[in-house]
Amino acid sequence: MSLMEDFAQVSRFGAGEDGSVERQAAGPADGEQRRWLCDRLVRAGASVVVDPVGNIFGLFSWIDGADWVMCGSHLDSQPNGGRYDGAYGVVAAVNAAEQLNRRVRAGDLVAVRNLVVVDWTNEEGARFQPSVMGSSVHCGLLPMEEALGSTDASGVTLREALSGIGFLGDEEFTGTTVRYAEIHVEQGDRMERQGLDIAAVSGNWAAGKYDIRITGEQSHTGSTPMPQRRDALVGLARVIAAIDDFARRHEEQFHASATDVVTFPHSPNVVTSVASAHLELRSAELDTVLRAERWLEELLSTIAAEYGLTIDVVRRSVRGSDVLWPEGVELTRSVARSLGFATGELRTIAGHDAVVVARVMPTVLIFVPSSGGHAHSPKEHTDPADLENGLATLTGVLAELTAGY
Amino acid sequence: MSLMEDFAQVSRFGAGEDGSVERQAAGPADGEQRRWLCDRLVRAGASVVVDPVGNIFGLFSWIDGADWVMCGSHLDSQPNGGRYDGAYGVVAAVNAAEQLNRRVRAGDLVAVRNLVVVDWTNEEGARFQPSVMGSSVHCGLLPMEEALGSTDASGVTLREALSGIGFLGDEEFTGTTVRYAEIHVEQGDRMERQGLDIAAVSGNWAAGKYDIRITGEQSHTGSTPMPQRRDALVGLARVIAAIDDFARRHEEQFHASATDVVTFPHSPNVVTSVASAHLELRSAELDTVLRAERWLEELLSTIAAEYGLTIDVVRRSVRGSDVLWPEGVELTRSVARSLGFATGELRTIAGHDAVVVARVMPTVLIFVPSSGGHAHSPKEHTDPADLENGLATLTGVLAELTAGY
Repeated sequence: MSLMEDFAQVSRFGAGEDGSVERQAAGPADGEQRRWLCDRLVRAGASVVVDPVGNIFGLFSWIDGADWVMCGSHLDSQPNGGRYDGAYGVVAAVNAAEQLNRRVRAGDLVAVRNLVVVDWTNEEGARFQPSVMGSSVHCGLLPMEEALGSTDASGVTLREALSGIGFLGDEEFTGTTVRYAEIHVEQGDRMERQGLDIAAVSGNWAAGKYDIRITGEQSHTGSTPMPQRRDALVGLARVIAAIDDFARRHEEQFHASATDVVTFPHSPNVVTSVASAHLELRSAELDTVLRAERWLEELLSTIAAEYGLTIDVVRRSVRGSDVLWPEGVELTRSVARSLGFATGELRTIAGHDAVVVARVMPTVLIFVPSSGGHAHSPKEHTDPADLENGLATLTGVLAELTAGY
Repeated sequence: MSLMEDFAQVSRFGAGEDGSVERQAAGPADGEQRRWLCDRLVRAGASVVVDPVGNIFGLFSWIDGADWVMCGSHLDSQPNGGRYDGAYGVVAAVNAAEQLNRRVRAGDLVAVRNLVVVDWTNEEGARFQPSVMGSSVHCGLLPMEEALGSTDASGVTLREALSGIGFLGDEEFTGTTVRYAEIHVEQGDRMERQGLDIAAVSGNWAAGKYDIRITGEQSHTGSTPMPQRRDALVGLARVIAAIDDFARRHEEQFHASATDVVTFPHSPNVVTSVASAHLELRSAELDTVLRAERWLEELLSTIAAEYGLTIDVVRRSVRGSDVLWPEGVELTRSVARSLGFATGELRTIAGHDAVVVARVMPTVLIFVPSSGGHAHSPKEHTDPADLENGLATLTGVLAELTAGY
């Protein structure tokens, strides 16, 4: 098997005609790809462990009692998502591990640490909240019960969904992991613009995430005088336009978005009484996000007062801007340079399992380019040559990490 | 039976704890209230006919071969709707007809026309589009097959829904109707502010209704640079804010609304690629609405160009501002005055079955006050005294119309 054959195989699970994939966490297509992965890991020489939150570990155990290097990403996708996001990292990890395992078993390569491949459950957070769920539970940053009790829009819990696809595991990976590595597509166009083959990720942007709920009052869309309307949708529209303006005024320094709008009631002739949405504010530095958060609070108060609405922030989570392991950045760049690749450093704007794991151990995160920067879209694309360059770099990095770097 | 007993009975169908009713067209609660109505009409002395679009007619046939006066409204409600909207008009029609029937049968009242009570199917247009459906079909303004083929959000046709509640009729009311009368709650606060007991409706505001669909492109809410985003939700937010500003600038002369927002996909981390909504522009004169429509078209083009979106108006319907039967206005005011009620004239901003029927015959539309102007809301309320005043006025008007006015 090769990287591209494996990738083509995974791309078939939940595939749409437009190049999209629909394999949200613990759904039917996720079940199919998980079964494929378990089989593929066994064929690569690993033993497989599934933990209670559905994380899949493929163990290449070379030295009894030695520490472990972990490498992986996630197979779950966004709705109508792209084929590369996450899946590439899992497929690359399996191929790198298979190659290293062959060389270690053949005595061509010396390892002082074992290697474990991982597929994390629900990185995307599209069906179940929060995102980066499996890695957060594994790292002790999210209680297992909270994760398993998370419900999707139709009230199904993650526990029920995992059980339904046969991946509510009852084992634990109990090895001592001392290094983590992940490779991922960039999901932006900075590498393409800078002509980079491989980027070492040096840190991540901060992000504030807010679920808001706006409450107004039902009335008649025709006869109700404009000043008497308490239209939750009008309030939400003004919030969305304002945060978009704010981000555009601070282009490149600031990103903002509103998504996941739900309104009640649904009728052409009834003024909306309840509107909810998910808002995000992102910037390189936590301070900037926190300043923007204060601005948002004032904005919500002003809009609530002006339009006779109540606006509640029903859920708030803030992620700081962390610096990833500097020696890992150096390692990635050194391996990439030795393979002849153009290499540089980037901070990731998007969240990743690696950003979670970096909070508990030295972590390497490697990016390959995304054509046109398309992400969370059927248009996601990375050239096969870039995918192979990434695999070669990841394999080199893992060889160093298992050798004790 | 009395008006208030009947009204209390109807208010129980689909009742919520907050005073709301949930009895959208051809749903289970609509089935219950329709069965109640048929029974109530028979007890009042009528024979019942259900037509193929589910309109219920209760015939008080006094003179073989004579023309008919029709009186009624609709029992269907908005989602989480109010108890008075439509239901009051049907209950008042039954009570007025019962009283007149008794007097005609007893020889106390001379009639030269027969009387028929009607409950129109799907006035609200919340579950099935378009609104004022049953009256439009009966008046020959909407093809029966188009109405029956209309689907709700889950793909159920009106034909299937009516069949499911046992009201897909196979008869027709074939009498020659020469006058129509309807009584309704105002759904605004103009009567309350002017101290009116009874208003004769002299005409209706014009309205433009537009279903728009905005198409952008999925991308990552975190990593995608702001200028590269093609966020359909941002486009929709700007449309909603702009039409609300427009209407507020022309307060009292202009009403506008956006409702019924549907977005795709639903994930916290995916930029919305498709957003649709229902927009309405209303003003007293058709010309004003048409000028606003041209302004809206420009607005949509500007927003589409600025944010890289495609905006399609997938459905457009415009209702003119009509003048209702002037002699009917005079009749209502004269009857109300003779009963000692404060009376005036209003133009209706909301649409009504009477506005449809007025296109094919002389039509009387009578309003009673709405406390606080609340409409399409659980807060809808009209004082029992106002309801009784309305019934007395309607009864007097119907006595005149059946006597040949």
